[in-house]
Amino acid sequence: MIDGVLLTPLSVIHHPKGDIYHAIKSSSPGYQGFGEAYFSTVTKGMVKGWKKHNRLDLNLIVPIGKIEFALHDDREFSSSYRNDLVVTLSIEDNYQRLTIPPGIWVAFRGLSEMNILLNILPEEHDPEETISIALEEIPHLYHILVS
Amino acid sequence: MIDGVLLTPLSVIHHPKGDIYHAIKSSSPGYQGFGEAYFSTVTKGMVKGWKKHNRLDLNLIVPIGKIEFALHDDREFSSSYRNDLVVTLSIEDNYQRLTIPPGIWVAFRGLSEMNILLNILPEEHDPEETISIALEEIPHLYHILVS
Repeated sequence: MIDGVLLTPLSVIHHPKGDIYHAIKSSSPGYQGFGEAYFSTVTKGMVKGWKKHNRLDLNLIVPIGKIEFALHDDREFSSSYRNDLVVTLSIEDNYQRLTIPPGIWVAFRGLSEMNILLNILPEEHDPEETISIALEEIPHLYHILVS
Repeated sequence: MIDGVLLTPLSVIHHPKGDIYHAIKSSSPGYQGFGEAYFSTVTKGMVKGWKKHNRLDLNLIVPIGKIEFALHDDREFSSSYRNDLVVTLSIEDNYQRLTIPPGIWVAFRGLSEMNILLNILPEEHDPEETISIALEEIPHLYHILVS
């Protein structure tokens, strides 16, 4: 595991006309305030990443499809420096919210025909606050994500 | 139109690995603070409603599928008292955020095979704050929703 990363189980409330899926409340573990919510889709077999936020915590929820996430701790001060986490989220098999503190490299791959994540950020999007590198730059996880 | 109801166009950012869909920012029109985010799915042809919030503003976004919303103004003080709004939201045809103030009856119908909405509320869910009635209780809109 990576220090500060949280996986928080979420409720699904069954309803005959269509289920309700919890996402996040202001009292939830990992909630750091609200700045922006956006959706990111990822085509089956495609991998988005690596991206690292320097300042912001992410809260990721997958309401449709199945997405595999790979995380790599790049914080030299961290007790889990250079540790990894690979986790797959979906409503059907593992409906959890993934909270990621700043300083962690993140990539993700679409596994179903249609895949979407909701990201809740404590500030509005700021391109100055993120860094991107090519997938091949973290080779041991790249091999997992394209396997 | 109904006084206080907002339809705010949202951006779709095209990406070769999967598009990004904006949802809401803390500076967005209609944002009233953050208490909870949840998803509601609605099966094709099914109608959920009527529900009215007595205190909370809703912000509804449809990232997957196509959902028809019907709104009926039940606020006696409103300049649009007893007015209606019927609007269909989807990424493909009409990607907008629907902001609904308290005191409006809301129902919605699923039009695609898979339909999901994100609701952003300024407080955590409180069942005491909502009222539900049967669809038939607002007959002229019920007929539209089941047509």
